[in-house]
Amino acid sequence: MSETKKTTIVLFSGEYDKAMAAYIIANGAAAYDHEVTIFHTFWGLNALRKEELVSVKKGLLEKLFGKMMPRGADKMGISKMNFAGFGPKMIKHVIQKHNAMTLPQLIDLAQEQDIKLVACTMTMDLLGLQQEELIEDIEYAGVAAYLADAQDGNVNLFI
Amino acid sequence: MSETKKTTIVLFSGEYDKAMAAYIIANGAAAYDHEVTIFHTFWGLNALRKEELVSVKKGLLEKLFGKMMPRGADKMGISKMNFAGFGPKMIKHVIQKHNAMTLPQLIDLAQEQDIKLVACTMTMDLLGLQQEELIEDIEYAGVAAYLADAQDGNVNLFI
Amino acid sequence: MSETKKTTIVLFSGEYDKAMAAYIIANGAAAYDHEVTIFHTFWGLNALRKEELVSVKKGLLEKLFGKMMPRGADKMGISKMNFAGFGPKMIKHVIQKHNAMTLPQLIDLAQEQDIKLVACTMTMDLLGLQQEELIEDIEYAGVAAYLADAQDGNVNLFI
Repeated sequence: MSETKKTTIVLFSGEYDKAMAAYIIANGAAAYDHEVTIFHTFWGLNALRKEELVSVKKGLLEKLFGKMMPRGADKMGISKMNFAGFGPKMIKHVIQKHNAMTLPQLIDLAQEQDIKLVACTMTMDLLGLQQEELIEDIEYAGVAAYLADAQDGNVNLFI
Repeated sequence: MSETKKTTIVLFSGEYDKAMAAYIIANGAAAYDHEVTIFHTFWGLNALRKEELVSVKKGLLEKLFGKMMPRGADKMGISKMNFAGFGPKMIKHVIQKHNAMTLPQLIDLAQEQDIKLVACTMTMDLLGLQQEELIEDIEYAGVAAYLADAQDGNVNLFI
Repeated sequence: MSETKKTTIVLFSGEYDKAMAAYIIANGAAAYDHEVTIFHTFWGLNALRKEELVSVKKGLLEKLFGKMMPRGADKMGISKMNFAGFGPKMIKHVIQKHNAMTLPQLIDLAQEQDIKLVACTMTMDLLGLQQEELIEDIEYAGVAAYLADAQDGNVNLFI
């Protein structure tokens, strides 16, 4: 059958290496003509944050969360051997050395390939993140939209 | 076809936020009439522990494990920004502020929605957890039962 | 229908307990006649390293990575309660006590059951791991091969 295959990934984790894995699989699947969605929830939302500080009105706790969480993909730590930020530098160094793609480049490629990037509105609420703080051309949805994509999917992953 | 969709989640992780994600997806799927199973293994078993201390006969090592692991969903730490327990307080605070559900409430809802909560007997053995220490109305099974559910599933996740 | 079921697991994590969970599910699925693949990427590659030091030519950074990462399944830490290596000792102790299988035994069993063990060539490159450093009888492939397996799979997990 010529039915389109579907890959749907929940990106829960806020680490550079896990987000890389998610985006590598997603971009690979898109290259194989899958319909691909990455649903960013909890710490995975940080991959979608703009690098620059966006001034929005927030409560104290939300400000605190905003300060403590990395602003954008490039600032995320890694899940192993982070060594207070030295690990990510090493990883980025070997990525460059091997002509592989950095996480921000993988996210750009995902958008070029029309991968649907979704920000989970419920956890945006909890963490006090607002739409102005996230990158352009993404969608906003909740768990119902995720399930609608996932239930007919071929590859479903939680990362 | 009017076949029932199936969602099967392995909850391996013992963190409050990851367990929240698992139970939010599970409750969402049940609301969409999926047949839902959460298979609790390793640290995910802690979400099923009773809050009160249950006196059961145990070896020294099993006692030690029992002491070191959180007693119930409410006591679990979070996977990022835990800050020696301050992080979970912040999360619970924002949950309340946004009228979202806490993890114990999500577990109650799951039971009301007839989500099948399973405790992995093999890892209960390894961690020295006994049935008396876990909440009521759950099932006990091993990897074979998990696979029987998962192999016909639509949404399979490992969290 | 008599179609063969498929289980495809991405093992991203480098922890003993998570790798155990992956290999227990994989071995269970193989026992149920699934066609099973474990695709080792990032820190999950460490489960495939030989225990002995293999002398290969490497750059400085690759040498450093090689030194910092555990050499083989038996040396991996655990994801909770690691306590500077005391946790893994406790886990191995209870595994023995309950006549359960250790991770190296689970990997042997996987190979006996013809589970396809794949090492992700892209992350081998990034982490500077060479084929001589990994155990025998495994395959080498990239994300395209993973997707080819996963897209027709019944149970797809990211661990």
